[in-house]
Amino acid sequence: MAVYTHLGAEDLASLIGEYDVGALVSAKGIAEGVSNSNWLVETTGKDGTGARFILTMYERRIDLDELPFFLGLLDHLAAKGCPVPRTIHDRQNQASRMLGEKAVALIEFLPGVSLDQPEPAQARSVGAALAGIHLASADFGGTRANGLGPKGWHELADDCGDAGLGEIDPALPALVRDELAFLDASWPENLPHSVIHADLFPDNVLMLGDEVGGLIDFYFACNDITAYDLAVTHAAWSFDAQGAYLPAIAAALIAGYHAVRPLSPAERAALPVLARGACMRFLMTRAYDWLHTPADAMVTRKDPMDFARRLRFYAERGHGAFPFPGD
Amino acid sequence: MAVYTHLGAEDLASLIGEYDVGALVSAKGIAEGVSNSNWLVETTGKDGTGARFILTMYERRIDLDELPFFLGLLDHLAAKGCPVPRTIHDRQNQASRMLGEKAVALIEFLPGVSLDQPEPAQARSVGAALAGIHLASADFGGTRANGLGPKGWHELADDCGDAGLGEIDPALPALVRDELAFLDASWPENLPHSVIHADLFPDNVLMLGDEVGGLIDFYFACNDITAYDLAVTHAAWSFDAQGAYLPAIAAALIAGYHAVRPLSPAERAALPVLARGACMRFLMTRAYDWLHTPADAMVTRKDPMDFARRLRFYAERGHGAFPFPGD
Repeated sequence: MAVYTHLGAEDLASLIGEYDVGALVSAKGIAEGVSNSNWLVETTGKDGTGARFILTMYERRIDLDELPFFLGLLDHLAAKGCPVPRTIHDRQNQASRMLGEKAVALIEFLPGVSLDQPEPAQARSVGAALAGIHLASADFGGTRANGLGPKGWHELADDCGDAGLGEIDPALPALVRDELAFLDASWPENLPHSVIHADLFPDNVLMLGDEVGGLIDFYFACNDITAYDLAVTHAAWSFDAQGAYLPAIAAALIAGYHAVRPLSPAERAALPVLARGACMRFLMTRAYDWLHTPADAMVTRKDPMDFARRLRFYAERGHGAFPFPGD
Repeated sequence: MAVYTHLGAEDLASLIGEYDVGALVSAKGIAEGVSNSNWLVETTGKDGTGARFILTMYERRIDLDELPFFLGLLDHLAAKGCPVPRTIHDRQNQASRMLGEKAVALIEFLPGVSLDQPEPAQARSVGAALAGIHLASADFGGTRANGLGPKGWHELADDCGDAGLGEIDPALPALVRDELAFLDASWPENLPHSVIHADLFPDNVLMLGDEVGGLIDFYFACNDITAYDLAVTHAAWSFDAQGAYLPAIAAALIAGYHAVRPLSPAERAALPVLARGACMRFLMTRAYDWLHTPADAMVTRKDPMDFARRLRFYAERGHGAFPFPGD
């Protein structure tokens, strides 16, 4: 949550000149993004009435070869009417440019605010928007493997080691070992795949009242089991700050999704396992970050145990955590 | 340079409701401010055409008793036509409010960009704007002592100690000792005083082309020697990133200032001493921060020696560093 690179007004003005968006008026580094720096940029606009953009500089973690996938996906989805920011192409029609050693992209600014605790009507809109990107991505040409799927969880668990996991919580090594074995044995193989967002937490959704103003931060997007994306979103949205399950949110999220892209019986049946996988994914990346971030660093480490608790909840509750309309 | 406090959309929307500025549309935490958190907030505006503000949350270092000085000063200067952001008063006509334990203020958003390396025409505008706030503050009722004046430099030097200063640079203890003795003996006593900004670095000036769009971050403002503020600004602007003196910038800054508020012969004579005091102020606070910030902390420590070198420059160059129109 920081701006990692200083970008002077002179550099910014010259960069903005490479796009047909008018002249630079204002730029503020914004405290969003962990693997990139972002600026909220205002220009005079093509017609002089002003325009706003997010300028993203890709700092690390991102393979530059993957940028065309991420940026092409935004353009594809935006063209299909999904609430995602389109990219602004430069005068050479490129969606990204190099600024020194680093790639940058200029992206449409979308209004809206990220909620801490959504209402059911808002969760319903989010479910519908998620289903919308799954449908709209069907004819998208790009593909990207999910590096944080079952194989990735094993790699992260090995890297943390039982000692590391035990440092976080004495019960964690056994939980991870047992759960990885369960997931290996139970992970569904034959469900529909598509492009998925894979990280649709509330801070990646801009809401305008009860409507979705924008889905953002597609930098974990990849091709994987479509219903896994709903499971990720369910695990991200259906608990309050104290970890208590919110059945009305879960029901609204699923209802919103199901109304736009009806889930097959096989997908419905797999949701509890997929949600346990989703919890494992965030448990593992948070555990890894926890062990690799000094306790006194000025970044907030996210508690891995949040998702250990959600994992246990899904294991105990099973299908009961996924209330469908008419159930 | 961070947002220290999480502020959810629900809290923000409720806070914005306390002001007559329309409804919350968007909010982005911005990477500005060391002692406070800031959000760039967009609302529907009073008339529905949209409006933007900076929401500041005072986190630390600021004595809440001093907020009326800082915020009242902005309103006073803005009312006099100075390019500073006015504060937005809430429905109870208060310039600041408490949000939980912390004070917040809603402040006008001003366009413009902070320059890395200004051109002379821009430095001239900055000098004129600085003189403008000195004149406009003459009938401002508030007063605030400068905690970072000569007495404050001694306190910081004592706190760092010769050992600490020597860690930064072996030559630093002697330089600080000799220079503090010189400043004690030479600090001017009878020059005009006024409210001064006291920290007008390029990142605290928003430029629109060659014009000043806004002077911001008045949280070091205080009552002190008026010409000291010009000396601070001179020391902050008249050197490039490698520390080389920029005579054309210095001349333009002084000319711009002098055209709006002509400096008296006594003020002109004192500028070299005042500039050495300005360098001592930033040398001391940076040395203090250097010694009190872990080397591996995720904040950039500013090199104290930048201002040791500028101090030596002013000591050697004397009046030659202050080219006046017609000299």
